[in-house]
Amino acid sequence: MPASSEERFIAEHFERLAADLPGAFGLRDDCAELLPAPGQAFIVKTDPIVEGLHFLSDDDPAAIAFKALAVNISDLAAKAARPFAYLLALGLPERPETAWMARFTEGLSEAQAAFGCTLAGGDTDRVPGPVTVAVTVFGECRAGTMVRRAGAVAGDQVYVTGRLGGAALGLALRLRTADGWPLSSDARSAALARYLRPEPTLGLRAALRAHATAAMDISDGLVKDLDRMCRQGCDGEVGANVDFASLPLFAGIRESLAAGHREALQLVSAGDDYEILATVPAAAAGAFEGLADRGGAPVTRIGEITAEPGVRVLDNSGQPIGLARAGFDHFER
Amino acid sequence: MPASSEERFIAEHFERLAADLPGAFGLRDDCAELLPAPGQAFIVKTDPIVEGLHFLSDDDPAAIAFKALAVNISDLAAKAARPFAYLLALGLPERPETAWMARFTEGLSEAQAAFGCTLAGGDTDRVPGPVTVAVTVFGECRAGTMVRRAGAVAGDQVYVTGRLGGAALGLALRLRTADGWPLSSDARSAALARYLRPEPTLGLRAALRAHATAAMDISDGLVKDLDRMCRQGCDGEVGANVDFASLPLFAGIRESLAAGHREALQLVSAGDDYEILATVPAAAAGAFEGLADRGGAPVTRIGEITAEPGVRVLDNSGQPIGLARAGFDHFER
Repeated sequence: MPASSEERFIAEHFERLAADLPGAFGLRDDCAELLPAPGQAFIVKTDPIVEGLHFLSDDDPAAIAFKALAVNISDLAAKAARPFAYLLALGLPERPETAWMARFTEGLSEAQAAFGCTLAGGDTDRVPGPVTVAVTVFGECRAGTMVRRAGAVAGDQVYVTGRLGGAALGLALRLRTADGWPLSSDARSAALARYLRPEPTLGLRAALRAHATAAMDISDGLVKDLDRMCRQGCDGEVGANVDFASLPLFAGIRESLAAGHREALQLVSAGDDYEILATVPAAAAGAFEGLADRGGAPVTRIGEITAEPGVRVLDNSGQPIGLARAGFDHFER
Repeated sequence: MPASSEERFIAEHFERLAADLPGAFGLRDDCAELLPAPGQAFIVKTDPIVEGLHFLSDDDPAAIAFKALAVNISDLAAKAARPFAYLLALGLPERPETAWMARFTEGLSEAQAAFGCTLAGGDTDRVPGPVTVAVTVFGECRAGTMVRRAGAVAGDQVYVTGRLGGAALGLALRLRTADGWPLSSDARSAALARYLRPEPTLGLRAALRAHATAAMDISDGLVKDLDRMCRQGCDGEVGANVDFASLPLFAGIRESLAAGHREALQLVSAGDDYEILATVPAAAAGAFEGLADRGGAPVTRIGEITAEPGVRVLDNSGQPIGLARAGFDHFER
C-alpha cells in the first residue's frame, strides 16, 4: 500500500514549516510536545478565520494564510508574549489545487518569519462548507506576568498603536461600498493591503510589560473593545473619554471625512484593526511612549480612563460622536 | 452601552466550565496562561469536527460536544499523556437556541468530568457554513517521554484496546445502510452510542509508558493507521501480519458476518474507533497485558510486526482478507 495521499499532502506542503521545532516530530506523529523555557508560561489563543466572514473566496491564498496567523499573533502581542509555535486546522471544501496550496504555504512561511514562530502540528479535513483556517498560537511570557485585559484604573491614559479604520476601508473597497470616495491611489492600496495583511505590533512588548495596567488587541472595533476593557477595571467597572481629534485615523478615512463622506466615520471603530489598546498610569506616560518608540511601535494617546462607566468619543467641543454602536458582535441581531 | 451579547453568551454558557483553571481568567481575557507542572511538557493536538462529516445535524448537541473533546483526548490517551485543558472554537451558522446550547455545554461538562480537563478559552463565530467544533487539547507528560508513533520493531506484538467497528456500524445504522442486518437491540443501541460517544482509553497510560515501542489512536481505520505506524518503524519501514480471527470485533459486526453479511467486513477498519493501537516487545507482552488490565483497559493481541513492509490481514489458513483498502482518507479521490 503506498503512503496515503493525506500523508503525502502533509509531507509536500507542511513538513518544512515544522522543521525547526523538534517537538513537532516532522508532523509524523499525532501530537506535538511543547515545553516553555524555564520560568516561562504558555500564553494560548485560538481564533479561526472563515471564508465569506473574515476573507473572500478570491483573496490571495498567501494573504489568507498570513491573516490566519496574524489575527492570533495580535492577541499575543497585546499580552506582551513572545510567539513560539502554532497548530493549524485547515478545512477545505475540495481538494485544493497545487498552486493554491503553494501560495497558502508561502503565506504561512512569510508569517512564521515575520512573527518568529513555527508550525507544531495540525489537521486537514475536506469539509462540506467554506474554507476554514483555525490557528491555535502558543506564546511565552514569564509565568504570572501576562498583561491582562482587566486592570485599568481611573486616571490611566489610553493609548493605541498604528492607525485605525484601514482594514474596514479595505473591505469597503473590496465590496465596492466606498467607490465614490476621494481616495488617493496610495490610500486605496494601503487600505487593501491592511484588510488582507494585518500586522501585529510585536514591538510594543517591552513598553507593555513595563507600564501597562491593561491591554488587548482591537479586533471588534475601538469602542467595543475599549468598553470591554473598561468593564473589567482593576477595582470594578470604569469608563473612558476618547478625544476624536486625537484618533490616529488611516489616511483614506481622514481624506474621506474631510470630503464630507460621513459614512467613513463608521469605519473608524468597525473592527479588524489588530492594533493594540493599552492603559498606562499618567505618571508613566512618557516612559511608555519612549519604550514604544524604541520598540518601533509608536503609540498615540487617545483619551483617559474615568470613574464614570461607559465609553464616550468626544469632539473638540466635548460633544459625543456616535461611534458607540459600531463594532462587530457575532451574536448581536 | 450594555455588555455585548457575545460577552453575555460566553458568561452564560461557558464561564462555569473554566472555573477550575486560574489561567483561564474566567474567560474574560483574550488569552489563557498555561504552565505544565515541573518536569512535565505539554502534549498538544487539534482535530476539529464538522457537521455532515463527523456528526449529523440532528445528533444530540451533548453528544456532539462530547465527541469534539473525545476525539482529541483519544490522541492524548495513545501518547500516554494526562489531559489537562482545552480551547474551544465554535462556528455556528445561526444564533443557537438556548436549549441547543444548554445540551451542548452539558456534553462538554460531562466530557470534562470523564477526561479530567478544563476549558481554558476559545472563540465563537457565526459562520456561513456547517457547525464546526474545533478543540485544541493540552495534556501533560514527563518531558521527552511521549509515546511516539515511530518506534515499532520487527517481532513486536501488536495490540488494540476495546472493540473495532462499532462507530462505523452506528453510522451505518444512522444512515440506514445496515437495515437488513440481524442485530440484537443491544448491539444496535451499543453501536449507535459508540458512533456518538467515543470513549478514549485513558486507563492504558501506565502500560504504554512502561512497555510500548509505539502507539497511536485508531481514527481512520485499523489497517490504515497500522500502516502509518509501520512506515515509521524504529529502524525504517516495517510491516505487520494481523490475524483476522483475533480481532476484537464489535458484537453487531460479528453477528452480521456470521449471518453472511460480508459488507460488515468493511466496517472493521472503517475508522472512528478511537481505540489505541500499540506495539510491545514480545518479552514484555505479559507485563503489558497485566498493567492494561490493572488500568481497566484490557488489550487484545492481534498480530506481529514483520521486517517485510505492508499490513496483511490473514484468515485462519493464512490467506489475506481484503481489509487493506478500507479506512478514511480526506485527500483520496
